[in-house]
Order: sequence, then structure tokens, then C-alpha cells
Amino acid sequence: MTDLSKAGADQISAALAEAKTAYGQIRGRNLAFDMTRGKPSAAQLDLADALLTNVDHDDVVGTDAGDLRNYGGLAGIPACRKLFGEYLGVPADQVVIGGNSSLQLMYGTLARCMTFGVVGGEGPWRGQNPTVICPVPGYDRHFAACEELGIKMVTVGMTGEGPDMDAVEELVASDPSIKAIWCVPKYSNPTGETYSDETVDRLAKMKTAAPDFRILWDNAYAVHHLGEGLDEVKDIMAACEVAGCPDRPFVFGSTSKITYAGAGIAVFAGSPANVKDTLDHLFFETIGPDKINQLRQVKFFGDMKGLLAHMDEHAALIGPKFKAVDEALTRHLTGKGIATWTKPKGGYFVSLDVLDGCAKEVIRLADEAGVKLTPAGSCYPYGDDPNDRNIRLAPTLPPLDEVKQAMEVVCACIELACLNKLAEGAD
Amino acid sequence: MTDLSKAGADQISAALAEAKTAYGQIRGRNLAFDMTRGKPSAAQLDLADALLTNVDHDDVVGTDAGDLRNYGGLAGIPACRKLFGEYLGVPADQVVIGGNSSLQLMYGTLARCMTFGVVGGEGPWRGQNPTVICPVPGYDRHFAACEELGIKMVTVGMTGEGPDMDAVEELVASDPSIKAIWCVPKYSNPTGETYSDETVDRLAKMKTAAPDFRILWDNAYAVHHLGEGLDEVKDIMAACEVAGCPDRPFVFGSTSKITYAGAGIAVFAGSPANVKDTLDHLFFETIGPDKINQLRQVKFFGDMKGLLAHMDEHAALIGPKFKAVDEALTRHLTGKGIATWTKPKGGYFVSLDVLDGCAKEVIRLADEAGVKLTPAGSCYPYGDDPNDRNIRLAPTLPPLDEVKQAMEVVCACIELACLNKLAEGAD
Repeated sequence: MTDLSKAGADQISAALAEAKTAYGQIRGRNLAFDMTRGKPSAAQLDLADALLTNVDHDDVVGTDAGDLRNYGGLAGIPACRKLFGEYLGVPADQVVIGGNSSLQLMYGTLARCMTFGVVGGEGPWRGQNPTVICPVPGYDRHFAACEELGIKMVTVGMTGEGPDMDAVEELVASDPSIKAIWCVPKYSNPTGETYSDETVDRLAKMKTAAPDFRILWDNAYAVHHLGEGLDEVKDIMAACEVAGCPDRPFVFGSTSKITYAGAGIAVFAGSPANVKDTLDHLFFETIGPDKINQLRQVKFFGDMKGLLAHMDEHAALIGPKFKAVDEALTRHLTGKGIATWTKPKGGYFVSLDVLDGCAKEVIRLADEAGVKLTPAGSCYPYGDDPNDRNIRLAPTLPPLDEVKQAMEVVCACIELACLNKLAEGAD
Repeated sequence: MTDLSKAGADQISAALAEAKTAYGQIRGRNLAFDMTRGKPSAAQLDLADALLTNVDHDDVVGTDAGDLRNYGGLAGIPACRKLFGEYLGVPADQVVIGGNSSLQLMYGTLARCMTFGVVGGEGPWRGQNPTVICPVPGYDRHFAACEELGIKMVTVGMTGEGPDMDAVEELVASDPSIKAIWCVPKYSNPTGETYSDETVDRLAKMKTAAPDFRILWDNAYAVHHLGEGLDEVKDIMAACEVAGCPDRPFVFGSTSKITYAGAGIAVFAGSPANVKDTLDHLFFETIGPDKINQLRQVKFFGDMKGLLAHMDEHAALIGPKFKAVDEALTRHLTGKGIATWTKPKGGYFVSLDVLDGCAKEVIRLADEAGVKLTPAGSCYPYGDDPNDRNIRLAPTLPPLDEVKQAMEVVCACIELACLNKLAEGAD
């Protein structure tokens, strides 16, 4: 296949004419597909429908956590803390079960950092010019929470094994206002990469000018493989303990992409001191979480083995969709020098880089042809991709056939947008 | 019966000897009862057990709010907003359905006031020396949320028709740092009183130095009568609209004491501008609430008629407990001049005032005799009852027979503590 990025004006002109024709045909199909967000499909949600009726009166009264229907239980029910302790690799008493949203736990944690500060710190972050390191491309909601709370963001690149640790170490070493880093350690959103052991060790061991530096460890895809087995990530809690900074990690997870996206449970884990501090503040925020929904999740899985078996069923549903994305990109774009993309083994996204300055145009063209993609720049703080290059593809929600059709559109849009750009350059 | 507060030393001495004997006997019974918190009893929770299994697959897919199992729906599902709009007397689009805890909604609202400010205000309350008016006795969790967030509190008394409005009007008139007032308008916690129309009108019409003054209207007991029908409270939203300050009220409610205390839903209502502002911020805090649990509540009630019929069943269970409290207090203490108490027609509490300086001692004696009461001072900011007079009785949780036994203890403790105090004075 011709490398268009190195082609001459004539070649580009001919290819552009073809691309225009192809796009025109596709646009005439009046499609309406949505690949904007990392949402589970209906078929995935169906897998968890037992949740709707799997606890009864006898399950919820007289438990070791009392009557689950009543008030209380700020940290969650013991059975749920135990299971998700195992899930996150920490003892049950280092786990706090929240409501249905890990974003809520993460936002709440950052809000408390700003208002109260953290264990080992010098009071509220507010007023200390707090800045969070944001590896990019990353998760828009992480960045939005920081922006909302008035927390500054500084970006570092991703390397395929996690964040660029040289850049991270340099940032944290001398500036005490650098207070935290966002991390999605496994099947990162959107690049799909998993942090190497070295990355984890360096995060744990690095000297930080801020005595209260925190790793915001959003382990959102801990068990979310695509059919070829599960990546392993080195235990951040253990690594930080060994490195003498046990309070550094705040760990988050949820069952949103395991059971129900809107009616799962969210999980926080941390050192004993962090858990105590969190609960001490949480006392003022709520009487306690929905304990019945915690029991639903526990009964549904039984144990970690059951949970992992359940994730194999998810993989069987979404693995083929990721394969379809890669097949379409490979078929249309390999060797053309206008796009590169990730080949994740888990998570919810494919991260696609097109020629600089073309991402917005690809997304606009796709929208006009009936395929909604995540807005350009979403994976960067303030929505600003400085190279206008990155596109996040989220293939889980539509049925497989729609993913295939949508990817034909996406590929046609990439060709058209990039050839237009190259043609400008060739003028 | 002798008014002990006016009795001579001999009379007091004789009565004290009797009270000591009575207390000694009661203490020997090794009781273990809990009247500390306003928790529903198991029998009340049983009334809502249909919630556990009342929605199925077909109910949650393809609704007018999409697939309820998936992400989204920040403001709540339409059916739930409609029902609880009716419940609170506002249009559905002025309702936001939260998670399982109205405290969480209230804390979150105050936190946003502090960090972002409110519609019509001059930015974040933090830095404006914000002070909230706290009618006392009141709800400890309201006061604790203020304390946690660094919001000052100033108290006003309750009158039997709501807060002392002369005092409130004076406070708000000249001081722009007076930013809000806590109100539990119906069957107030703990006095059980319901705000008069005049109180509501004065709250709506009063001129406030703060342009962004807010009424924190915690309508926690909107439908929670005790068997003699429901009090009416004038519509605060309408009153404020008429008074030209539609953004003044923040209205809260929940089904915690209607269905399940730990697994109900919480509700916020406000002016269109307040709802928009709330949702604009909430977007950053969560992807959305548990919509399936919203549907459970809606299906369980059907409509407001169903909800009200359900509350009659609650009244049949808890009405007799309140009657038992009043009967014991009346039988033991009427005319003795050492205690007064409320006779609520709804809500979850009886507010008991004993001789000044005796509340802590009554609670200590009761604890030693096996009856746990709410800690002294709980109904005052910072836990400080300046007269050490007020005791909150919460009779809903224990079975009726236990309430009766516990009240014998409480009455004996009141007699002993107050007679000890009077004996000191008579020395």
C-alpha cells in the first residue's frame, strides 16, 4: 500500500478523488451509530440480570452487618469489603464500598483533598496551587473533575508501559504543588496499555517534593480482558508500602462495567490511615451506602472465581467488536502513513492517532455520515489535544454489525480528512 | 400531684429516697434497649419488602429513560421525578433524584455553596464568613455538616409553629454573612412541630442582607403522620415565587423512612435556575444515580395515593409507640414541674425538656440502666445544649413492649436526676 504521507501531489490528488467518492457513497446510507462513550451493550447488561431478584427478605435481615434495609454501615458490608478487597488485592478493612459511581468516590476524594487535605499533608490543597499530573491521552472525566475543583493539570505522555516516568519524576521532584497523578493502570483509557512493573515501582519510589503526594489509581479495568487472558499489574499498595510511602495510593474500582453500569457498586481502598481519614469525613456526608445493592453484587459473583468467570462472558461479547475495529483499520489504512492505533487486550477503547490537525475533521465527517464519535480532544485536559491528532473509539455499545459498518465510515473519513490535509500541503 | 419544683426540702428528700429505690430496682433488670436514633423498626421495613423483587428485565430495558441498567440519567428517571415532584409539590423538571441519602444531597449542596456559590450570589461562600441559622433543638446531622464544612452556626428557638421568626428576621436583615437557615417544616426533628402558614410566609418574604440567602428545607417527614392524619405546610416554593425570591428554597426529601432507610431514594427540588445549577455541577461528580432503585420505588407506590396508603401502615406500627411514650411521661411526671414534652402528630421524635442542668445526668442514668438515649446536646450545634435540658426520644426502632419498658426507665431517671438537682438547691 502507498504511504500517502510520502506521496507526490498527483498520487494524493487521485487518492483524494477516490476518497471523496467513497465518503459520498457512505454518507448516502443515512446511518445512525453511536461510538462516543465506553458503555456496555444491552447483551452485556443482560449477563447480570440475576441482580434484579437475587436477594430476598431472609438475605437482608439479621446479617453480620445487621438489617441491611436500615441505616448505617458507612464502610460497606463485610462480605462486600472482603470480596472487593480480594479484587483489589488489599485486606477487607482497607476497603470502603461506596454508592453506584466510582467517579463520585474520586470526585469526593479530590474535593476532600481540596477542603481538608490528606494524611501527612499540610492542610487543605486549596491555596497550595495544587496541580495534578495527567498522562495523555487519558480519561476525560478525571480531567473534568480537576477542572471543576480548580485543580491545575500538567500533562505527560504515555509510553506503552504507562506514563512517561522520566517526565513524571522530574515534575514531582522539585515542585511541592504537584500533588497527585491520575493513573488507569490496566488497559488504560483510552490507549489500552498496562503499566509495567518498572512503572509501578518508579511511581512508588519516586521522591516527591510534596509530602502529601497521591497516586489516584483508578483501576477501572482490573478484570476487563478481551478474550486472551488478563494482564497483571504490580500491586501499587504493596510497592508503596515497601517504598515507605504507604499513604501514597488512593485506589478506586467499580462494578459498573462488570454488572450494571448504572447500578453497580464503587470501591475505594487505601492504607489504614487513608481509610480512617476517608471514613472520618464520609461520616458527615452520608448515613451510609445502599447495602442491599452490595449484597446483590456479592451474591451474584459468589467469589472472585465467579467474578472472573463472569468477565469471560463479557470478553466473548466485546472481543469480536475490538477485532472488527482492528480489522477495518488494518484493511483500509495499513501502510498509508496517515493513522496508527492501539491493539488493546482489555478495557473499553481503541486509541487512534491520525495525521496532525485531522482529528476534528475526521470526527466532523463521521458525524455528518451518521457515526457519532467521542468529541476531539476529549482525552486531554480542557478538551485540548495540542496536535488535533487523537480519536477515541468506543466499540462496546453498538452490536457487532453496527461496529463493522461504523468502522467503514470512520476509515473513509480518516482517508478523506488526511488526504485533504496532504493535498493542502502539496499545493 | 406535687409540683416538685416548688416543694420544700422535706418533700424533696422523701421523694428522692423513693426515686432512688425505684431506680435501683429498674437498674437491676439488666435491660438493653436502644432509643438513640430515628430508625424504622424491622416491622416497618418489612412493609416495603416487595422492593426486593418488584422490577424485572422488561421493566428496565427500553424505558423512556433508555436502558435503566446503563449509565446516565443525571436528574433521575422521568417517572420518579414526576412522582416526587407531586410529593414535594413541584413540577417534575424541578426535581433531581439522588442516591440513597438525602444527607448526601444536603452535604453536597452545602459543599457546592462553599466552593462555587449559588445562583444570584457573589461567588463561593467560603471566604464570606458564611453563617447558617439553626433553629434549636434541631437535627444533629444538619449541624455536623455545617461544622465539617467550616460554616458558622447561630441558633434561634422553636416556637411550636416553627423557628422564632422575630429572631430570624433580625439576623438576616443586616448581616450579609447570614447565608441560610435549616428548616424541617413538618413534624420537625425533634420537636414534632409543623410550621404555620405565617412562618412560611415570613421566611419567604423576609428581606435578607445576603442576596443569595437560602432556605435549606429538609422536608424529611412530609407524609409521616402517626395515625391522626397529615398536617399541611404551606408551599415554600410557591411562597418564595410570590415573594419574588424563587431561588431562595433548596428542598430535600427522601424515602428513607418510607421504604428502606438504607436503600431508598433522595430528592432535591428547587427553582429552574437552582436545578440547572445543581445539575451543571453534579455532572462533574457522578455519571448518574441508580435508576433501577428509582424504578423500584415508583413501581412499589404506583402513585401518591399508594404512597399515602403505605404511610398509614407505618402510622399503625409507630403511632402506638408514641402513645406509649406520652402515657408513661404523663403517668409519672404530669404536674411535677420537672419535665415537659412534645406530643407530635408525626415525625420520629419526642422532644423532652427536663430541669435545667439535668439532661446529661438523665441520659447517664438511663445508660447505666440499659437504655441508650441520644447523647445530651445532640440537638444543638457543636453538641452544646446551653441549658443541659433537652433529651430527644426516638421510639420507632424498638418493639412496642420495649418502648414501654424503656420509658419506665427514662421516667425513673428523670425523677432521680431532677430530685438530686432540687435537693442540691434545697441544701
